[in-house]
Amino acid sequence: MPEIVSCDSLWTNARLLITDGQGMLSIVAPGMIAARDGRVVYAGAAHDNVQADRVVNVDGRLITPGLIDPHTHLVHGGDRAHEFRLRLEGASYEEIARAGGGIVSTMTATRAASEAELIAQALPRLDALLAEGLSTIEIKSGYGLTLTDELKMLRAAKALTQHRPVRVVTTFLGAHALPPEFTGRADDYITEVCERMIPAVAAEGLADAVDVFCENIGFSPAQTERVFQAAQAQGLRVKLHAEQLSNLNGTALAARYGALSADHLEYLDEAGIAAMKASGTVATLLPGAFYFVRETKRPPVQALRDARVPMALATDNNPGTSPLTSLLLTMNMAATLFRMTVDECLLGVTLNAARALGLDRDLGSLEAGKACDLAIWDVDRPEKLVYRIGFNPLHQRVFNGVEV
Amino acid sequence: MPEIVSCDSLWTNARLLITDGQGMLSIVAPGMIAARDGRVVYAGAAHDNVQADRVVNVDGRLITPGLIDPHTHLVHGGDRAHEFRLRLEGASYEEIARAGGGIVSTMTATRAASEAELIAQALPRLDALLAEGLSTIEIKSGYGLTLTDELKMLRAAKALTQHRPVRVVTTFLGAHALPPEFTGRADDYITEVCERMIPAVAAEGLADAVDVFCENIGFSPAQTERVFQAAQAQGLRVKLHAEQLSNLNGTALAARYGALSADHLEYLDEAGIAAMKASGTVATLLPGAFYFVRETKRPPVQALRDARVPMALATDNNPGTSPLTSLLLTMNMAATLFRMTVDECLLGVTLNAARALGLDRDLGSLEAGKACDLAIWDVDRPEKLVYRIGFNPLHQRVFNGVEV
Ligand SMILES: [Zn+2]
Ligand SMILES: [Zn+2]
Repeated sequence: MPEIVSCDSLWTNARLLITDGQGMLSIVAPGMIAARDGRVVYAGAAHDNVQADRVVNVDGRLITPGLIDPHTHLVHGGDRAHEFRLRLEGASYEEIARAGGGIVSTMTATRAASEAELIAQALPRLDALLAEGLSTIEIKSGYGLTLTDELKMLRAAKALTQHRPVRVVTTFLGAHALPPEFTGRADDYITEVCERMIPAVAAEGLADAVDVFCENIGFSPAQTERVFQAAQAQGLRVKLHAEQLSNLNGTALAARYGALSADHLEYLDEAGIAAMKASGTVATLLPGAFYFVRETKRPPVQALRDARVPMALATDNNPGTSPLTSLLLTMNMAATLFRMTVDECLLGVTLNAARALGLDRDLGSLEAGKACDLAIWDVDRPEKLVYRIGFNPLHQRVFNGVEV
Repeated sequence: MPEIVSCDSLWTNARLLITDGQGMLSIVAPGMIAARDGRVVYAGAAHDNVQADRVVNVDGRLITPGLIDPHTHLVHGGDRAHEFRLRLEGASYEEIARAGGGIVSTMTATRAASEAELIAQALPRLDALLAEGLSTIEIKSGYGLTLTDELKMLRAAKALTQHRPVRVVTTFLGAHALPPEFTGRADDYITEVCERMIPAVAAEGLADAVDVFCENIGFSPAQTERVFQAAQAQGLRVKLHAEQLSNLNGTALAARYGALSADHLEYLDEAGIAAMKASGTVATLLPGAFYFVRETKRPPVQALRDARVPMALATDNNPGTSPLTSLLLTMNMAATLFRMTVDECLLGVTLNAARALGLDRDLGSLEAGKACDLAIWDVDRPEKLVYRIGFNPLHQRVFNGVEV
């Protein structure tokens, strides 16, 4: 007879998506989840030895962990819909630039927006994700590109938790693009990032990690390393936008700094994979950006799988290359475009997404001791969450043990 | 001073997506729409010379025509999520067939389902489309493949209008696949389709048109022509699944029979385009299927555009190759994958979709005389409906002049 479980909330008659220690998924049915003070105290096969203040019969529905989006630029000013229109009508880059397009337009709109305006613009995007069972989201700075505006973005990201029941993890991405004030002086801008911005962000406790866009059109590996050193000096973990458009060996560099994740990875090679494997760095794949920019080179999913590098999935929500606010669709894209399996997709937005944020002790699986963040779905099998396109079967979201 | 408008419902303070006679779109703001007895009596610039029983201020929101999905297989039994999982895990075709996959599995599930069960299974898919502003949907038979089961599918499709405020157009697609009972006897099955099924469908008034899957893995052009002749004998219009996987010149054949539309068209050539142009046949493109089967050959959008062949867009909702229930996402895919412009995408799910159904006198644009089917959106510009991915800004749907 199982040990008696005492809890404040109990969800019964469930089909549970359970993750074992090897990261394999299985369904437990009939299953139940018990929570006390917002944390899971039991998740597994149904039994009767339970004392619960409140019992919710979920009528055989599937329960997964609350979904986690581990890479977004959700907080930003404006959108790029007009630029999207112009591009499809054949406008050249010059014409788009003249019409105010490109990343500079997002920077300008972000700088012009107040913190309250950034929050107001981010909320509909966040709501779209929440409507599909999101519990935790990572949000980066990187469109302010001045100390003041980067701090404003991070504050806006953190403030979202005052407006919605959601967990927000913030990342400082001052080294996202070179602001026009520093044209031709990228190293000087990196100095600004390292010597002024990172210490200020750390002093205010505004970021959980530091990220860099390491690319020919972004920052070099040498500049990236300077940022990583500044982050390390403040005790901040690092991650990297790496090998998206070319292979600069950014991933191996990130791995040397114990990066939480390396993200994008279309051009990742075997040496990079080996480095990630050694450092325990998660591969965060972003199929929405791959789709939207019509990339044809796929990230090396089979090699990552063979090396047992954990793969996370994220929307990369941003106005220029991934105006995507659906983790269900992200999973379908990962399956369809990258040939990830159903279980890899599900782990990608749950346990491996938690790992990419360094939060897998607390989040990402239905396990005693973790936060009771649940997504309860009107489907019987998890593959239906991945297979269907443009369909949201969420029945109920539970955040820290509370229906929201 | 404009002529006085007398109406029962008036939507004011709107941004209207107006279609001119040349099929060009423009925004009229501030605009208003007046309806009487479910039909538009005025759509255009706001003025004061109106007598309305009821006035709705839409606060500057965008109003488009209700969306139209002109090619779906929405009514079907079962799903293919398990097959999707197996394929991603590397299962061979034989293994999938043994596990009950493929079109035969959908046929079996459809035959096993009652009309009421088919309706119950279709409703969540229909609801997903309605939630994004759908007003009219075409639904095909083609998974029954016996007279009884094809009639059951068509009755189920028509019965959806008793459950939801929506307009359903039905198409008989008995020549969708060869049922196992006729293995090796495709011509005999076509005889069954022509001599028994089409007359019975026509006698009951269950279909508005007749369709065929003309392909190497479907039916030949000669078999297709027999079906078209049988349809014509019953006074039914035709359409065709054509040039999806190869070029059999099905489109030119369809054009000779005055087809409403030719659909898919990845392998369409110049001769086919010229034939469509001459016959006024609409090109219905299905980017969801293109995406889901990872097709690489794109339909000849530029050539269709140059020839001024109207292009419609549809979900092709079906369990095997397009489990898609979002016209917003269909538009994004058409833009992203096929490089259709924003206006082409919008016309594709409004006026040109109506044309593909032969209903453009009644539907598809905000014009006096047409049904008052509206989608009212929480956006200011129509490009935001195409640009964003996994986001539904629908504020309100109006069907035949009534908020639903
Ligand atoms: Zn990013
Ligand atoms: Zn079809």
